[in-house]
Amino acid sequence: MTERRAQLLDAALTLFAHRAPEDVSLDDVAEAAGVSRPLVYRYFPGGKQQLYEAALGSAADELGHCFAEAQTGPLTLRLARALDRYLAFVDGHDTGFSALLQGGSVVETSRTTAIVDGIRRAAAEQILVHLAVPRPGPRLRMMVRTWITAVEAASLIWLDEGKQPGAEELRDWLVDHFVALLTATAATDPETADAARAALALESAQGPVGVLARRVMPVVSEAAHLL
Amino acid sequence: MTERRAQLLDAALTLFAHRAPEDVSLDDVAEAAGVSRPLVYRYFPGGKQQLYEAALGSAADELGHCFAEAQTGPLTLRLARALDRYLAFVDGHDTGFSALLQGGSVVETSRTTAIVDGIRRAAAEQILVHLAVPRPGPRLRMMVRTWITAVEAASLIWLDEGKQPGAEELRDWLVDHFVALLTATAATDPETADAARAALALESAQGPVGVLARRVMPVVSEAAHLL
Repeated sequence: MTERRAQLLDAALTLFAHRAPEDVSLDDVAEAAGVSRPLVYRYFPGGKQQLYEAALGSAADELGHCFAEAQTGPLTLRLARALDRYLAFVDGHDTGFSALLQGGSVVETSRTTAIVDGIRRAAAEQILVHLAVPRPGPRLRMMVRTWITAVEAASLIWLDEGKQPGAEELRDWLVDHFVALLTATAATDPETADAARAALALESAQGPVGVLARRVMPVVSEAAHLL
Repeated sequence: MTERRAQLLDAALTLFAHRAPEDVSLDDVAEAAGVSRPLVYRYFPGGKQQLYEAALGSAADELGHCFAEAQTGPLTLRLARALDRYLAFVDGHDTGFSALLQGGSVVETSRTTAIVDGIRRAAAEQILVHLAVPRPGPRLRMMVRTWITAVEAASLIWLDEGKQPGAEELRDWLVDHFVALLTATAATDPETADAARAALALESAQGPVGVLARRVMPVVSEAAHLL
């Protein structure tokens, strides 16, 4: 990739991050990069659609790195760090992120859909690596993929609501959501139960699972009739 | 709506339910309805796009009814009944359902996106009615909307995996997911905690929450170091 192409892509990324695709023109990209419109066409003969897809591919690479995390320490800490990076990305690409995921966009094609699906799959595979299950069965895979979608949905709602609550509160809730879903799935799937036991063994009383367990107690203690 | 229009719409609905939109032509609709192509155009001058949107609107009405449920008895039973109807709908509209929600489809427009969003919103409102919270705060709303997305994602994965596990097992897991998410959110949101307490009081030891609680015990009992 030449330097000039990288410069154009960088300008496109910034524009597509904070505007809906229909509000970005090739002239905007040329102006932001300080070049002429014909020059943009020389590097991106497919025009806006090609620029959008290149920018999306570049953003996808960045997102992929969010989920890369060393396999040491408590699972909730690893998830929290990955979510911090993910939510910082969402925060920095707000309008573009919403437009991309809400569908019906003018630049949406089977190629852009495939890029987004690829990010989801990569994120799910990372989580399964951290759960240390080499060949996960259907229930565990469904659980992880469902949580990934929940993270995505929560991010969109978060943007919709003016980034409220704060990113840290949202991150903690998403970690709690994961722990709750893992535990509930463990109730009926032996493979998930093994993964949950191994993960819980690495957690500490001061960590998110300990805090969650102590906070859940008062709510469920009134439901002793269920046991 | 005339009888003939209803007949055409019915034929379109059946075709769009089991084929991707790009695999349905106006000729197919005419043939399935036993009429001529010009007649289809007389009722739907906007052609395939108009037929698709009309069929989608009709399917949306049907889906809306899935979530209507009397406000009596344990919450998990109400959810299970709504999910049974929802999963029967997904089962009966498999290919069309996947094509609609996976995005990048040729017939996707801001109007079709708005119809799908309308269904999600209506479903979330129904759940909040059953939680008996008149003016739900942001955390509870986010929790419910996130669960709705999880149900949708799980349905798509279910179709992808050849409708495995069985619909009842999927339904039970989605109910467990709701209970787990409600409980985890109750840990940090007082309003959700009140709603969770009220909901748990109506559950029985033989019901899904009782079964879930007893099954979760062995998994978390090894994690006594967290308390």
